[in-house]
Amino acid sequence: MNISALQKERAKYQPKLPQSLKGAVKLVEGAKTESVADQKEIEELFPNTYGMPLVAFEAGGADESREPVNVGVILSGGQAPGGHNVISGIFDGIKKINPESKLYGFLGGPGGLVDHKYVELTSAIIDEYRNTGGFDIIGSGRTKLEEEWQFDKGLEIAKDLKLNALVIIGGDDSNTNACVLAEYYSQKNAGVQVIGCPKTIDGDLKNEMIETSFGFDTATKVYSELIGNIQRDANSAKKYWHFIKLMGRSASHIGLECALKTQPNITLISEEIAEKKQTLSDIVNYMAAIVARRAGNGENFGVALIPEGLIEFVPEMKKLIAELNDLLAEGTDTEKEFKMLRKSHRLDWVASHLCEDSANVFKSLPAGIATQLTLDRDPHGNVQVSLIETEKLLGEMVAEKLSAMKKAGEFAGKFSTQYHFFGYEGRCAAPSNFDADYCYSLGYTASLLVSEGKTGYMSSVRNLTAPAEKWIAGGVPVTMMMNMEKRHGHMKPVIQKALVELDGKPFKYFVSKRGEWAYGTQYIYPGPIQYFGPADVCDQPTETLNLEKA
Amino acid sequence: MNISALQKERAKYQPKLPQSLKGAVKLVEGAKTESVADQKEIEELFPNTYGMPLVAFEAGGADESREPVNVGVILSGGQAPGGHNVISGIFDGIKKINPESKLYGFLGGPGGLVDHKYVELTSAIIDEYRNTGGFDIIGSGRTKLEEEWQFDKGLEIAKDLKLNALVIIGGDDSNTNACVLAEYYSQKNAGVQVIGCPKTIDGDLKNEMIETSFGFDTATKVYSELIGNIQRDANSAKKYWHFIKLMGRSASHIGLECALKTQPNITLISEEIAEKKQTLSDIVNYMAAIVARRAGNGENFGVALIPEGLIEFVPEMKKLIAELNDLLAEGTDTEKEFKMLRKSHRLDWVASHLCEDSANVFKSLPAGIATQLTLDRDPHGNVQVSLIETEKLLGEMVAEKLSAMKKAGEFAGKFSTQYHFFGYEGRCAAPSNFDADYCYSLGYTASLLVSEGKTGYMSSVRNLTAPAEKWIAGGVPVTMMMNMEKRHGHMKPVIQKALVELDGKPFKYFVSKRGEWAYGTQYIYPGPIQYFGPADVCDQPTETLNLEKA
Repeated sequence: MNISALQKERAKYQPKLPQSLKGAVKLVEGAKTESVADQKEIEELFPNTYGMPLVAFEAGGADESREPVNVGVILSGGQAPGGHNVISGIFDGIKKINPESKLYGFLGGPGGLVDHKYVELTSAIIDEYRNTGGFDIIGSGRTKLEEEWQFDKGLEIAKDLKLNALVIIGGDDSNTNACVLAEYYSQKNAGVQVIGCPKTIDGDLKNEMIETSFGFDTATKVYSELIGNIQRDANSAKKYWHFIKLMGRSASHIGLECALKTQPNITLISEEIAEKKQTLSDIVNYMAAIVARRAGNGENFGVALIPEGLIEFVPEMKKLIAELNDLLAEGTDTEKEFKMLRKSHRLDWVASHLCEDSANVFKSLPAGIATQLTLDRDPHGNVQVSLIETEKLLGEMVAEKLSAMKKAGEFAGKFSTQYHFFGYEGRCAAPSNFDADYCYSLGYTASLLVSEGKTGYMSSVRNLTAPAEKWIAGGVPVTMMMNMEKRHGHMKPVIQKALVELDGKPFKYFVSKRGEWAYGTQYIYPGPIQYFGPADVCDQPTETLNLEKA
Repeated sequence: MNISALQKERAKYQPKLPQSLKGAVKLVEGAKTESVADQKEIEELFPNTYGMPLVAFEAGGADESREPVNVGVILSGGQAPGGHNVISGIFDGIKKINPESKLYGFLGGPGGLVDHKYVELTSAIIDEYRNTGGFDIIGSGRTKLEEEWQFDKGLEIAKDLKLNALVIIGGDDSNTNACVLAEYYSQKNAGVQVIGCPKTIDGDLKNEMIETSFGFDTATKVYSELIGNIQRDANSAKKYWHFIKLMGRSASHIGLECALKTQPNITLISEEIAEKKQTLSDIVNYMAAIVARRAGNGENFGVALIPEGLIEFVPEMKKLIAELNDLLAEGTDTEKEFKMLRKSHRLDWVASHLCEDSANVFKSLPAGIATQLTLDRDPHGNVQVSLIETEKLLGEMVAEKLSAMKKAGEFAGKFSTQYHFFGYEGRCAAPSNFDADYCYSLGYTASLLVSEGKTGYMSSVRNLTAPAEKWIAGGVPVTMMMNMEKRHGHMKPVIQKALVELDGKPFKYFVSKRGEWAYGTQYIYPGPIQYFGPADVCDQPTETLNLEKA
């Protein structure tokens, strides 16, 4: 493999571990746990893995030799920086427990377990991937482990490979499924444990015991590097508004973190929009007012951050989309009628078949977007919200609003836009020192949970704003994070998604500052992730964590 | 100003200078020069600034006190990383010459000179901008200094401020204009010198004496970081082809440099396409063949780099665009007829009015692109080539080709695309160590050229693949780089643009490797620019320079 100069140097990096894990380790059990809600239902669904205690690993105990442990590891879902370090942490952990331990990687995600596709991860392989980005060591996939036949197929190969445990590295859904699997294997006395690891750049898998999911730090640092560069360009050329969409469907943690790092003029937070029941027109008016006031100061430029999932948080858009899904559902009479119409008549026809409010929203949309909403459907006939280019939708609507304001004498500036979408640019970046250390520690901790015979636990490393030596390693029962939610019409036990808390410190700090940032051009330019310099530059966790812990 | 942790550390960085400039310096004159072509015409147009000798600065000479020099500096055109370091190099240079020297910055580009908008750059201001990206210290602009009334207005303020010289930091056109200005002031005996500095991320201002323009190194490093991250994602998810368009209208140096750094599956080089007179369909077939063969290996993913200016290098597209410009020119009968047509009839009508070849090309384009070509016109009625989303055009055409191949049994894979355009992400990045050093040296050298009374010279720092201590500083008469070219119907003296040389070492190396890269998935992941680590990681020039010097 031909590798870059930076990779050569980074291969030498030894990720930091909590002090407590460096020598002999003992397990300390904490209090019994309960699920965050719906305790009765969750307990019934998870008779074997409900109510288990929190556990922590502390220094001490006898440094006695332990039995080898064989582990199968799975990468599930979208890439996040640091996945390879979780795997190298597991590898080093189980080898420390006993050099006879073995690590197998299932290929291409959870599907590899079901299809019995795997590779033994040797130290030669692991060494090539230490501190690198990507999930390419074994690949990832989006197969959901939800059905018993999948669990049984998985058990077959686990038995063949004499696995003590599976470690599933994934987001909230994958960890939910990991817990269902843990429960199933427990019920069957299958002798295979299941441990989860909290991964997602979106940052929406977190709670008291899981302070952050891995990858969020690196991804937001890459996006902030780019946002900073674009801000500097905006402030140099002084002629463009850059509308930047940021990956992440559900929560706006990425946008908030990037805003805290770079201080752009506008940042939309989906959770606030939902809470305040803002309309598209409210949002457009808010943005146009900032553009106009900056223009009044002679500043016909700016930067706006827009979360990818925004549209689904705007109540009126959610309603419109639901109505469109009904109106144009495959095989309905209305869909047939729609398809018979000449193209030039379709938008009016659609509007006339919506409720008054939705019709007004629909008519306010730029024609291209309105057409897209009626045409591009997924295999179930639903509007494909992810195809809507939210940044362009808002850009066009703001331009329209400003031209009305110009006629009314309320805007005398210029408004030219550039659009960007950042997502793939950051998901496979090489992990920051923070993520390299955090992931390695998560993996190492997972190996200890396996060795201690735990199942249905998520690896947990806390106290993350302190230096790595002082981090606290342990395990959290996955059921503790669960509640019941409706999914595809059925109530299901799921890990509660962590949205941006509007009464949390990060959001409140942002709110206290965004007025200044809007008008004052107080951009910060974070620059690229650094690995070798002073700790202030290289080893800082996210602003979100810093503020949450402040 | 609230600055990032990295900026705080970088503010302390002392850019490296060539050893020869560190103490007392003496000027050594070289041979008289001639323009690269059209010697007679250029000499007639530049009687005072033609044929001047190359000059170099060497260590030695008396360390005597020199007269103060007052300099006005101008940033011209698009941003490039390192502009602030050119300015701090000039500042430190003229202060070393004599602490009474003064530096003024004209605001918002060449327009600031004409409009007498300026600021004195004090050490307090300079210190805030050392080693930072952007042109925001004084702003940039695209006003062209081409007319005598502008030169005269400039002279007024130069006299008011007692300026010895103007330093114009810009690309090929700005340096051409700088030389015209130098000649004009010489003819008038105005007592104001003009010195140029070679800036552009595009890399197309280079020759024997100007090994590279500044900013190219940093910008291509930022783009390569992102390309590498996307390649790692492609290779992890294994389900997308990423089509990445890279900024740069005329030359493909950026694409070539990024390809050398990252080894993507496909890189299109505009100069090769023009030379081989390739058609759009040739390009699409080439790309589709690689997609199909990779799919045959089970790899339904890849990365393709596409230069922004590609379309104008495809001979048949150039011809089509010229015909469209004539057919739909404002006020013509054909334009009136076109506008009267129903939208659904327009494309057929246009095709029927083109020559057979152009009609075939036009009909081969996706409908959206064809429509865009007939609708979006600039104020002169011309097709706006820059609005064509080349990456999507190619993506759609490759998809179409593959679906034909599928029917013919020649393709059995999947083809899903993601599109990216990188430009603003890199133009204002903080300069790499290389650009920080190179720019500072260029500025410092400019101050010496001023002190030596030179005019019509470009600051030159050479031997750039050696450590900075061994760089060679001097000046090159701008007329030496000139030839006559047709611009807007008139022959004009201009600096010859440096396109990718198809018999040059960088391109030849690329050609020798691109087959392997296409099929072998030999991605390199360069990672982010590093400032503090080992020299191998932090201080390397571009691959283009390394290969040119090899």
